[in-house]
Amino acid sequence: MMDALFDRHQPTLAAALKAAQDRGYWSAYPEIPSGKIYGETAKDDGLASYRAHLGKAFALPGHPATTTVGAEVSPFGATLDITYPAADAKTLIAASQAAAPAWAATTPDVRVGICLEILARLNRISFEMANAVMHTTGQAFAMAFQAGGPHAQDRGLEAVAYAWAEMTRTPVQATWTKPQGKADPIVLEKHWRIVPRGVSLVIGCQTFPTWNSYPGLFASLATGNTVIVKPHPGAILPLAITVSIARQVLAEQGLPADAVLLAADAPGAEITRDLVSDKTVEIIDYTGSNSFGDWVRKHAGDAQVYTEEAGVNSIVIAATDDFAGMCANIAFSLSLYSGQMCTAPQNIYVPRGGIETNEGHKSFDAVAQAIAVAVDALLADPTRAAGVCGAIANPLTADRVKVARRLGRIVRDSAGIEGLPEARTATPLILTVDGDQTDAHEEERFGPITFIVAVSDGADAVARAAALARRKGAITAAYYGTDETDILSAADSFAAAGVNLSVNLTGGIFVNQSAAFSDFHVTGANPAGNASLTDAAFVANRFRTVMWRRPKAA
Amino acid sequence: MMDALFDRHQPTLAAALKAAQDRGYWSAYPEIPSGKIYGETAKDDGLASYRAHLGKAFALPGHPATTTVGAEVSPFGATLDITYPAADAKTLIAASQAAAPAWAATTPDVRVGICLEILARLNRISFEMANAVMHTTGQAFAMAFQAGGPHAQDRGLEAVAYAWAEMTRTPVQATWTKPQGKADPIVLEKHWRIVPRGVSLVIGCQTFPTWNSYPGLFASLATGNTVIVKPHPGAILPLAITVSIARQVLAEQGLPADAVLLAADAPGAEITRDLVSDKTVEIIDYTGSNSFGDWVRKHAGDAQVYTEEAGVNSIVIAATDDFAGMCANIAFSLSLYSGQMCTAPQNIYVPRGGIETNEGHKSFDAVAQAIAVAVDALLADPTRAAGVCGAIANPLTADRVKVARRLGRIVRDSAGIEGLPEARTATPLILTVDGDQTDAHEEERFGPITFIVAVSDGADAVARAAALARRKGAITAAYYGTDETDILSAADSFAAAGVNLSVNLTGGIFVNQSAAFSDFHVTGANPAGNASLTDAAFVANRFRTVMWRRPKAA
Repeated sequence: MMDALFDRHQPTLAAALKAAQDRGYWSAYPEIPSGKIYGETAKDDGLASYRAHLGKAFALPGHPATTTVGAEVSPFGATLDITYPAADAKTLIAASQAAAPAWAATTPDVRVGICLEILARLNRISFEMANAVMHTTGQAFAMAFQAGGPHAQDRGLEAVAYAWAEMTRTPVQATWTKPQGKADPIVLEKHWRIVPRGVSLVIGCQTFPTWNSYPGLFASLATGNTVIVKPHPGAILPLAITVSIARQVLAEQGLPADAVLLAADAPGAEITRDLVSDKTVEIIDYTGSNSFGDWVRKHAGDAQVYTEEAGVNSIVIAATDDFAGMCANIAFSLSLYSGQMCTAPQNIYVPRGGIETNEGHKSFDAVAQAIAVAVDALLADPTRAAGVCGAIANPLTADRVKVARRLGRIVRDSAGIEGLPEARTATPLILTVDGDQTDAHEEERFGPITFIVAVSDGADAVARAAALARRKGAITAAYYGTDETDILSAADSFAAAGVNLSVNLTGGIFVNQSAAFSDFHVTGANPAGNASLTDAAFVANRFRTVMWRRPKAA
Repeated sequence: MMDALFDRHQPTLAAALKAAQDRGYWSAYPEIPSGKIYGETAKDDGLASYRAHLGKAFALPGHPATTTVGAEVSPFGATLDITYPAADAKTLIAASQAAAPAWAATTPDVRVGICLEILARLNRISFEMANAVMHTTGQAFAMAFQAGGPHAQDRGLEAVAYAWAEMTRTPVQATWTKPQGKADPIVLEKHWRIVPRGVSLVIGCQTFPTWNSYPGLFASLATGNTVIVKPHPGAILPLAITVSIARQVLAEQGLPADAVLLAADAPGAEITRDLVSDKTVEIIDYTGSNSFGDWVRKHAGDAQVYTEEAGVNSIVIAATDDFAGMCANIAFSLSLYSGQMCTAPQNIYVPRGGIETNEGHKSFDAVAQAIAVAVDALLADPTRAAGVCGAIANPLTADRVKVARRLGRIVRDSAGIEGLPEARTATPLILTVDGDQTDAHEEERFGPITFIVAVSDGADAVARAAALARRKGAITAAYYGTDETDILSAADSFAAAGVNLSVNLTGGIFVNQSAAFSDFHVTGANPAGNASLTDAAFVANRFRTVMWRRPKAA
């Protein structure tokens, strides 16, 4: 009985629906990598499971394959030496299409039950996933656990909850009774069903292979579409594990495992363009650069395209009543995962004449210096530095840091991390520039590169940051100020630019953080992406509602 | 106090929301053109108001204009001789952009109140609108009243209700409290607002200028976008009246009238392509041909595009237990507005060997003949024929009927309507063809052209009709049969092809009819359109939700 899965997970679904409506704090999957929660041996078991993948062919029973691929190298040093079954786009799409009718014929509760079971099993292997994410993305273990495990699962659940809400908005049947004056009314019985769009494609990124892929994956799957998961060739393992679990659950329920496929490919021989261009693909979820995002949007034909691309995130410092807290908070935001988050700030706008603080007036240079010192303090201990910064996922990012050193005056230089001698590492590079004399900071420079930009005043800072967001996109913005009118004005300006804004963050919450069920991630209202994780628009167009009607028997 | 409008119309909104959820029969605006409902002098007043437009410059105070256009000719014979203010695409878009900030800054309740007031005023002038629609589309008066007035208003209200539901789904603010073990929790206050996409464009068609335009117009307007309404050059008046009322309400509320603009243009010098291609336009609602729809979808850039295009609608006759009722019902569907509804059937599939009925076995020819006779009977009285068929909107449709006579064996020839000597008229042409010997019926042939197609049996008929719907699109389908298993199987087949199906209609309900709040019009799941009127997907992506957050003061 397939609905058993739905019944089992119904309390989780109900709580998720309520959380998404209230938008207070809620999480279904514990973010603390604790043996008390996940089992005393979970950490060791997860590591062992991860290690068991190394040097082997990853098994996906029954998965279409004409060859194998795999060239993952951990940013922490080791070669993973895992191979994956692979096939060309046509083969994968044909297999997905073959699985489509049976998957489309399931009811929403069956599909949602299966999605929630997949998420529950993913949660159970969060330690294995943490290692897989760590050694493909370069995230430090704690972050890889949270962002790659429970937080990604929460984002998947959020998509399932929204999909459920949308699919059940129209009744399965209704009676339509139209009065006809003194004559008998016309009475029709009407029946509605959910019809999926067809084959969907999820294109993952290297830095957050699960977190950024789960919303599209689960939104499409829950609404009845088959899904082809295309991982970044440098971060296949986390999505291979995900696909493997999804296929197991599907097969157990007597449904075609090929409703979820892995489109593994080799660096330099990616099949992404073939998949995107195929007219059979009806839905595309894409996370990645704006330039390839532009290509995807142009070549997707009539497919629905949901993107998270990139932008230039800004912090505006107009004033603060907690100078030390502000600097420490910003230092962590700049250092976390070495600035490789799509939510990490790049530009910090500070008035040329300095700012007023609880510690008195601070000149522009004093503000820049204090932020640099706060980063130094945060990263002084090599173990802690390793735990905050992790490693650099892509060699191009390390190169970008070197080149960026010429773009301004260096306030804090980037360096390797002593505690990770075999890893590719880089701590934050902090430069100062004058906003009137350069526009070097107006390009996205992905990685641990920060510009402290001298501008006229707080209002000028907001205007520049918001204009840049409109032009180049931005996913986050932060504002520090003490005047309520200025704060509300900044909120208006960034809202008009389609950027979510954090104001006066100090302590243990950071502008980079985006919490499922409360924070929408990306607004879809500027070039940083055309969709939001997760709102109704993200799910409502992944299916259609089709009716049949007939006169109702008396 | 602007919210007064929202308060005044809140009961209508509440009833619309409930109706959209229940999907039983409901209508906000009475469809009966009765003096008892609309006022004893409403009919005469409406005609007088319509006549007052003729031969004059249509006044849209403050509307951008660099020239005037206008060349409408009633399909019933008379020249309207009305001119409208007109400007090029750039001028209109600039005016729309100038109005955008003030309109975007209004709250959802203010916008929804204004939309509902516009609809209420449109309802009050339904008789004027009926004449305007009649003399631009060729619809007979009763149909022009219903489809152009109350039914269009219901579709507008439906869009407003869905927009309201989506905009109010996320709270305006919430408190986010994240536990921190034994430490104090992190507490943030979060604030959300609705941010519209920007300038939207509604491209109307000639046959249903209001019914097909109101959903997009009101969905975009309610969600905070400014709207440029581009009427078909042959049917400007109904939308000019609509825009005029919208601008009046906006101006009364101290808001820029240019939030709603009319993009009137001249036949042969349409500005549609300029409007579609402009990157400023963020949303496009289009009703029209597949060929131009294809152009719109290709040239809209990153704009959201919602289309109702066209398709080939089919009826399958497998069997019936009410042969006379079936033939009469089909006859009306073929004759109504001379087949110029996007929901009108074109193909009627009948088994070569005939069908079983309550009147015994009927051969293929007998079925075809009986449908033809039913049309003759329906249209025997010239006054009734005029009231059912109306006139032909576009001369090309009349030409198409002439050409189509060669495509099969004529069972019933098309003819003019005696009661309308000055009008362009054409009663249904009915042809028989063999489905194995021609595919002439597989092209859309818009207008009063019907093919009765000989096929193997009911299952073959369903398979052909559903396959055609997948390939060419279809908005409606009908099935006549007596076997419950076959009926459910037909429902599955047409659902998979994305077509709403009507089964065994006899009496006063017709396959062409689509009722707001119950029938979704177009599914968006086949080439007949990519959107549905009205579901959540139609409104949810017309705006984005943007947040700001900060630590909550203790």
